[in-house]
Amino acid sequence: MEQGGKPVLGWAAKDTSGHLSPYRFSRRVQRDGDVTIKVLFCGICHTDLHVIKNEWGNAMYPVVPGHEVVGVVTDVGTGVTKFKAGDTVGVGYFVDSCGACESCGTGHENYCPNLVLASNGVDSDGATTKGGFSDVVVVSKDYVVRVPESLPPDGAAPLLCAGVTVYSPMMQYGLNEPGKHLGVVGLGGLGHMAVKFGKAFGMTVTVISSSPGKREEALGRLGADSFLVSHDAAQMKAAAGSMDGIIDTVSAGHQIVPLLELLKPMGQMVVVGAPSKPLELPAYAIIAGGKRVAGNGVGSIADCQAMLDFAGEHGIAADVEVVGMDYVNTAIQRLERNDVRYRFVVDVAGSQLDATA
Amino acid sequence: MEQGGKPVLGWAAKDTSGHLSPYRFSRRVQRDGDVTIKVLFCGICHTDLHVIKNEWGNAMYPVVPGHEVVGVVTDVGTGVTKFKAGDTVGVGYFVDSCGACESCGTGHENYCPNLVLASNGVDSDGATTKGGFSDVVVVSKDYVVRVPESLPPDGAAPLLCAGVTVYSPMMQYGLNEPGKHLGVVGLGGLGHMAVKFGKAFGMTVTVISSSPGKREEALGRLGADSFLVSHDAAQMKAAAGSMDGIIDTVSAGHQIVPLLELLKPMGQMVVVGAPSKPLELPAYAIIAGGKRVAGNGVGSIADCQAMLDFAGEHGIAADVEVVGMDYVNTAIQRLERNDVRYRFVVDVAGSQLDATA
Repeated sequence: MEQGGKPVLGWAAKDTSGHLSPYRFSRRVQRDGDVTIKVLFCGICHTDLHVIKNEWGNAMYPVVPGHEVVGVVTDVGTGVTKFKAGDTVGVGYFVDSCGACESCGTGHENYCPNLVLASNGVDSDGATTKGGFSDVVVVSKDYVVRVPESLPPDGAAPLLCAGVTVYSPMMQYGLNEPGKHLGVVGLGGLGHMAVKFGKAFGMTVTVISSSPGKREEALGRLGADSFLVSHDAAQMKAAAGSMDGIIDTVSAGHQIVPLLELLKPMGQMVVVGAPSKPLELPAYAIIAGGKRVAGNGVGSIADCQAMLDFAGEHGIAADVEVVGMDYVNTAIQRLERNDVRYRFVVDVAGSQLDATA
Repeated sequence: MEQGGKPVLGWAAKDTSGHLSPYRFSRRVQRDGDVTIKVLFCGICHTDLHVIKNEWGNAMYPVVPGHEVVGVVTDVGTGVTKFKAGDTVGVGYFVDSCGACESCGTGHENYCPNLVLASNGVDSDGATTKGGFSDVVVVSKDYVVRVPESLPPDGAAPLLCAGVTVYSPMMQYGLNEPGKHLGVVGLGGLGHMAVKFGKAFGMTVTVISSSPGKREEALGRLGADSFLVSHDAAQMKAAAGSMDGIIDTVSAGHQIVPLLELLKPMGQMVVVGAPSKPLELPAYAIIAGGKRVAGNGVGSIADCQAMLDFAGEHGIAADVEVVGMDYVNTAIQRLERNDVRYRFVVDVAGSQLDATA
């Protein structure tokens, strides 16, 4: 066990196999302004997969994943008045930022160049951050958000990353106005949240997917208005020029020209999925209609809180499959083949964390 | 000569050689709302090159090019009060739009799907439009703009396309604010206008070019603040994260990731040059900083008038090489190898249009 702080039990990947197993470590001593949180649930995001297997070349083993945390406050440091013991709170993709850069100064701290990620990040004291696959997290109050009581804590966990990642650009680019037409490409953890937010905003929502079998899910369970099979040229052509915006959540390689053709002039595509190969973007495809492509990485803390409040008011949570930590390695394998509707969430508090992996 | 209208003498490409030679045709009879304009000067744009050689597969020979027209009103139709004989006016890339679509309704008629181009377009009566390489044009008043008296008519001609193509997105994306940092990629007809507008807006302007030899031009003649050689990795790295926006005017194939790295978080790149091969856009390059890439095609008539008014107030005109029509084929060859600083403009009124080609 590491020295100097609160003893914690988590699960970590110790090498590029990505296999998670129990891991004892210590959290920092609660500082002024800190909030200590007993973790209830933590979602499994695709980013966790990339990191634990060192696919991005930045893993600092042992890696304790998890950045979609919902928990209960157990203690607060001096100066914390916003939260108290017993509050249900959330922690997302990052737990600190510099506070001094242009992004921090304009309320877009999610783009701070010195962002401290919740897991596998480098904290201001040089320590490697450990994520929510552990019984306790200690986080500065400024990076903790309140989870509305109306939301189920398991279904709320994925809102902390998947939810805000689609909600934030929808707000930023005006893709939250009743009557506008939103395209959602890909129906996974991010996509199904975009459909839910789009419908709650009063938009017309079309799901675009390479899997014809997802039609029923999209239209029935999620309430989308229409469904396009991305490789059906006739369907795609019939919908050309009809959409105000598109949220592209696909992380596999894919063509974006057919998607850009779905946009109205001056329409906005937002890329939130990250294929490993570059997207092909012919200049004519955006010049002709003055179209726009933007990337988006999660959202600010203020966005995250606003998203949770909106979700609470509209009863929006992720559709989740709750599993115990002893199932986490199987869950990761299933996630790799997209065998989940739509997000695995680990019942951390309900798991025996020191069980044999 | 075609029947039915006003006899006109112009120069046209008659086949894919792209060679221009004298061509007699007729303009439509001036209708209610029309303005008849004696052409003084007409710029040569890269688009003209593509069209006359049928490189885009859409040439309707004979093609009379030219969509950067400055001329003098000689007559107006019934209902025209905005212009009168003797006014100096301009005509740009398009001469009509549907007036009924969402783009037209929101003042972005340049993205109307039924836009009628000034040259090689299809007019509402089915006729192929003929551009400004001719002694007279007849255009609906709604697509004619006023050229301030303070501007030289030859240097003003390229404003009608090159000028508005960079001015319009600069206004649209807030790249017109004093103190902001603008990158201009490529120093040709479009790029040199972007530098001039950027400086007039009070911005810090950096030119990024693959040609080290353009440094003097950029800093001295055009007044840019700094200059980066795009293939100098050290220079580019030193400028990383420093720019609010970039206008990318390059029409040759090039890498955009090094340019996106120059942007601050949430920075805006605008693509106005059209390389024939797709741009490579890795998702991470825009997700990490929430960056944006937009295409832009010219600008609305209102943008064009606002741009001309601004240019008039600030004494901004294109740097041009004025040539006679008898030199036009040579000028086109020189333009193809970028041997012009920065725009050829044909002195149409001063040329003997029926001379041997």
